[in-house]
Amino acid sequence: MRFFLLLCFLGKMAFAQQNIQSPDGKLKLDFSLNSKGEPVYTLKFKDQTIIFPSTLGFKLLNDTVSLRDGFEVVKHKVSSQDSKWTPVLGQYKEIRDHFNELEVELYQKKRATQVHLRFRLYDEGLAFRYEFPRQANLQYFIVQDELTQFNIEGDPLAFWLPGDYNTEEYRTTTSKFSEIPAILASGRLTAGESYPLFQNRGIKAVQAPLLLKNEKGIYIHFHEAALVNYPAMSLELTEKGFISHLTPDAVGNKAYLQTDFVTPWRTVMVTDDARKIIASSMILNLNEPCALKETDWIQPVKYVGVWWEMFVKGSTWAYTDEQNTKLGITDYKTLKPNGKHGANTANVKKHIDFAAKHGLDQVLVEGWNEGWEDWYGLWKEDVFDFVTPYPDFDLPYLRDYAASKGVKLMMHHETSASATNYERRMDQAFQFMKDNGYNAVKTGYVGFPIPRGEFRSGQWMVNHYIRVAKTAAKYKIMVNSHEAVRPTGLSRTYPNWIAQESARGTEFESMGGSDPDHTTILPFTRFTGGAMDYTPGILQTTFDYYNPNNDQRVHTTLVKQLALYVVLYSPLQMAADIIENYERFSDAFQFIKDVAVDWDDTYVLEAEPGDYLSVGRKAKGKQEWFIGAITDENSRNANLNLNFLPKGKKFTATIYEDAPGAHWEKDPMKYRIRKVQVDASTVLNIPLAPGGGTAITIRQ
Amino acid sequence: MRFFLLLCFLGKMAFAQQNIQSPDGKLKLDFSLNSKGEPVYTLKFKDQTIIFPSTLGFKLLNDTVSLRDGFEVVKHKVSSQDSKWTPVLGQYKEIRDHFNELEVELYQKKRATQVHLRFRLYDEGLAFRYEFPRQANLQYFIVQDELTQFNIEGDPLAFWLPGDYNTEEYRTTTSKFSEIPAILASGRLTAGESYPLFQNRGIKAVQAPLLLKNEKGIYIHFHEAALVNYPAMSLELTEKGFISHLTPDAVGNKAYLQTDFVTPWRTVMVTDDARKIIASSMILNLNEPCALKETDWIQPVKYVGVWWEMFVKGSTWAYTDEQNTKLGITDYKTLKPNGKHGANTANVKKHIDFAAKHGLDQVLVEGWNEGWEDWYGLWKEDVFDFVTPYPDFDLPYLRDYAASKGVKLMMHHETSASATNYERRMDQAFQFMKDNGYNAVKTGYVGFPIPRGEFRSGQWMVNHYIRVAKTAAKYKIMVNSHEAVRPTGLSRTYPNWIAQESARGTEFESMGGSDPDHTTILPFTRFTGGAMDYTPGILQTTFDYYNPNNDQRVHTTLVKQLALYVVLYSPLQMAADIIENYERFSDAFQFIKDVAVDWDDTYVLEAEPGDYLSVGRKAKGKQEWFIGAITDENSRNANLNLNFLPKGKKFTATIYEDAPGAHWEKDPMKYRIRKVQVDASTVLNIPLAPGGGTAITIRQ
Repeated sequence: MRFFLLLCFLGKMAFAQQNIQSPDGKLKLDFSLNSKGEPVYTLKFKDQTIIFPSTLGFKLLNDTVSLRDGFEVVKHKVSSQDSKWTPVLGQYKEIRDHFNELEVELYQKKRATQVHLRFRLYDEGLAFRYEFPRQANLQYFIVQDELTQFNIEGDPLAFWLPGDYNTEEYRTTTSKFSEIPAILASGRLTAGESYPLFQNRGIKAVQAPLLLKNEKGIYIHFHEAALVNYPAMSLELTEKGFISHLTPDAVGNKAYLQTDFVTPWRTVMVTDDARKIIASSMILNLNEPCALKETDWIQPVKYVGVWWEMFVKGSTWAYTDEQNTKLGITDYKTLKPNGKHGANTANVKKHIDFAAKHGLDQVLVEGWNEGWEDWYGLWKEDVFDFVTPYPDFDLPYLRDYAASKGVKLMMHHETSASATNYERRMDQAFQFMKDNGYNAVKTGYVGFPIPRGEFRSGQWMVNHYIRVAKTAAKYKIMVNSHEAVRPTGLSRTYPNWIAQESARGTEFESMGGSDPDHTTILPFTRFTGGAMDYTPGILQTTFDYYNPNNDQRVHTTLVKQLALYVVLYSPLQMAADIIENYERFSDAFQFIKDVAVDWDDTYVLEAEPGDYLSVGRKAKGKQEWFIGAITDENSRNANLNLNFLPKGKKFTATIYEDAPGAHWEKDPMKYRIRKVQVDASTVLNIPLAPGGGTAITIRQ
Repeated sequence: MRFFLLLCFLGKMAFAQQNIQSPDGKLKLDFSLNSKGEPVYTLKFKDQTIIFPSTLGFKLLNDTVSLRDGFEVVKHKVSSQDSKWTPVLGQYKEIRDHFNELEVELYQKKRATQVHLRFRLYDEGLAFRYEFPRQANLQYFIVQDELTQFNIEGDPLAFWLPGDYNTEEYRTTTSKFSEIPAILASGRLTAGESYPLFQNRGIKAVQAPLLLKNEKGIYIHFHEAALVNYPAMSLELTEKGFISHLTPDAVGNKAYLQTDFVTPWRTVMVTDDARKIIASSMILNLNEPCALKETDWIQPVKYVGVWWEMFVKGSTWAYTDEQNTKLGITDYKTLKPNGKHGANTANVKKHIDFAAKHGLDQVLVEGWNEGWEDWYGLWKEDVFDFVTPYPDFDLPYLRDYAASKGVKLMMHHETSASATNYERRMDQAFQFMKDNGYNAVKTGYVGFPIPRGEFRSGQWMVNHYIRVAKTAAKYKIMVNSHEAVRPTGLSRTYPNWIAQESARGTEFESMGGSDPDHTTILPFTRFTGGAMDYTPGILQTTFDYYNPNNDQRVHTTLVKQLALYVVLYSPLQMAADIIENYERFSDAFQFIKDVAVDWDDTYVLEAEPGDYLSVGRKAKGKQEWFIGAITDENSRNANLNLNFLPKGKKFTATIYEDAPGAHWEKDPMKYRIRKVQVDASTVLNIPLAPGGGTAITIRQ
């Protein structure tokens, strides 16, 4: 019997292996069908195998035949593309999209089903996706499992987050690949929030983006691009590496699909130069072009906010200390104010004055609207209506006052993850924003999602975030989504989705902290999907300043906070500290006022994940350059080669640097500022304190 | 140890048993706490115990202490009420609300929680509910189980539907109580639709409303009133009777609540005269008064429709036979019409002409809008947009034509149970209706609900239906909801929620049929919650008329179809047959044209569930009376005492009756019409054929 089967397999017509190379010839993809008719791919970098033979396939719900073997190649096609496009906002004025492509049309006889595979090789990596064309025998289908293997060898170093379905707000764990299961099992990992009911149902998986560095110094970066109408992918550990693990829905299914359909791209960046990961536009390139007709209303934003005081000064989002409020029933005017409500008219006015004085664009106000008394942890559906200010927030006055000062208020829509409630009220909420002169909203999804049983990275919620971005675009509103699923380059298609959180941001410095190497890892992982509203700029880095009993702190020096504006790409950047601190550190604050948030060009000068990162950028449309360099807990010298400057011209560099003796823990706010003359031949050598950095402005 | 415990129990201060009686003294409720501090109630009818000592309580999620024992009575209060109110539409011009009430305030020390119980005794039954007042230790809570017992003795006859979470469209099973578990386990029951994934997760339960008849001829009817923000209740079988079983949500919880909160009323009607169940307004009385300020726009509706032809003539809802359409992407104009699409302009125009000619109010048009190619069984979220007509449905023309004829088109919103999609589009859809002169919508929820994992009788969907009714009211739109949860009298509060389906209606006569006794049971069960859009009036009762191979049929005589307009209360009634049949049977159709659908008074003349029912009603504001009498599969004589007529006046009764030899199966369309003079002293004796009935118009 066994012999017979073997004969069958051998008897099949073997599909000749097909391969393509990256434009620079360094990456090579092999594709073939194995003896079972399984699609298999292999990826090599400079002739070293990076992804060992890995199979591709699907398991559909209620299908007796899996879409994983018995395939034949109907036809294949190799092609190339080299084009350019202009992002609305970005790290580059223009982006080159250059790849070689292999398209394979597969047919599975036993189910009479066509599946196409499309592979693209960029210089910096591989991307591939499944395509389900319109066909008679596959119209609607439910995905039970995607079976994409990523087989590796050896025991690389991994920079990873646990495969939680609901949050990316973990510290990154840096460990050997082989150590991941034990660490996951130990439960030592703590999320930003606790999810007592749901995490990932016991699956041993890590999230994408995932960065590995193998024993030969090669960096391997896994992610996905263009996550649309599909759940986010985690990477489940196997004996040989990883297999795709999709976030389930409330009943355990993964995705409800209709042909024709294409999955998100699965991406594997490979390089021996870590700078290429930071510089890459591959994820953006794999997304669809801009879907909006007009984009001139999408503008970069630098903002302050009524926000950090809730974390360090005891201000509250809530207007009262009473609880058990009911939306549309509770009359807040009858409740006793707690006297600590941050979003009061006088405080907001002060922020408007500050923004106007210092040329900042917007003022975020959190806690402006009714509902905060009962917003958290209750799995309550109707928490906020997004249109009713608290009694002490005089919206008409502040709206007019802000307008008179040339400043915009930034809206805040905390949904408490009640997406159903938000969807019902979204149009009215956006209209309310337009009527009151707002053009940007920070959305929030803290808590268990509603629809109950859905996860924040599942197909339903993925569709929700996109629906929000598209609906907001109809009202010409920019969206800065917090607690949404990790980004996958969709800001190319919906550039009004200007930034996301989807990682452990500054707020955690007041809730247990982040390690000094945190921001030396994020750019290689989280930021490869898109801009983050990290909210840097905390110049008062120790919190005993506010309260002697508060021994928490930012895990950086003051200067590193400045450097983050350049290192952490975002066209929306907050000056997150209490505004009084900017008056106290007005010379350092000058960098935040000066730094651009939209760019003509980006130069990654030095990069090693978990250790250091130095980035230079040219301001959009201006002869101004900014540099940010950061280090982890170790002191280090940044070597900054300014050969990106125009030749033959002299410039003045204003250098913000850790003063001697500065240390993120021991003496974090010790800094100095100096000016030097530089040109394209200059190489600056700047000492970085432990947990420190440098920030540089270069102008004529 | 056991002795010690007993001592403890005995040592507690016993709460003196409290009791109240119904206004007529026939029903008696005893309430007490037992030795464990459990609330216990007992119900007696004419000194026979009907509900044997039954405990009340709750289990909350994540609570170590159940709210089921250890209670003390803090205080109690007995009161009475006798008042009247006027329904917008109804069986009566005025409704008396007359009851004695016992309110008990309970306190559970170990959880420091207050729970109130409110019992009401009406002449026809008991109602009680739990009330959770606003309190420090109970603000937000999640119900894991409601533990309301209904203990009975003996082995009564039961008229029951299986406790399916998703549908009420079953045949009623009539069996002994003791036989229920075996019949449930046998799987012989078939729902209107099949629910391969979800039914009731193996729980042995039957739905409310449930009717029992015990060995002594006493009828016991279980239901609930005012189902708001709570899942529907089924009755799980226990050794002693029943315990409440709530529909779970996607993650298995039952209800997310916030104090103050009151549960729906649990109702137990008890009578030895089955007519009282039909005549009762108890369920309505237990609902909140009308929540709408203006109600003059809510009017009774008699309508025809492009509908029955889909069941018997092969017309289709879909415009094409192609599939795999995409909302907002598919251009229907490019698809090949199937030539069988019912909702085409010419056909609708014909129906408008018919309605105008015969004085009917509205024309329902199903299948008017894009999406029907791919609407069923796909668990697809975005099926319909509710605003886009098919290419062959000329909405502007038909809108204007209908208006010129004084007829309204009735909107149809099939949601395919994708409630999330409907909620997103509802406002736009209702605005579209207003813009085009519609004032009534038939909603549909066929399929698995979205949010996925929710059930049609769960808290989320219960809230959804109410949200639809409230939103529709803002646009002055009446709602006739199909496949929604069974009604609980909410038409008092939202009178624009004019009718529901929520049972096995006429459509099933073309899908396996309903038994001849079906409509002799429904009024005692399903209709006690509110009006049903049963869609009677099928005069061509055999379907081989359309197609020789179609051996299906209506399981009544032609005349019984007429009688249903009176027997089955609804202020919205369809003349459901193909309009050509009304031309063929124009003399019989005259009854449908004449019969009122809103009433000053109702007289239940004869009643025995499962056997027969005779009802007389006085038309609202008119000196016109209508009588409907029906029987099951057995022939019978209806004895109709007309003593409800004004004394001393003569009237002409037009009697539509089964002709001799008529039989639902053998000769269903054999009828005759005669006129006789009647007055208040007349007792009509009308023979009813097997599966037959009589319908009578009485005018001066």
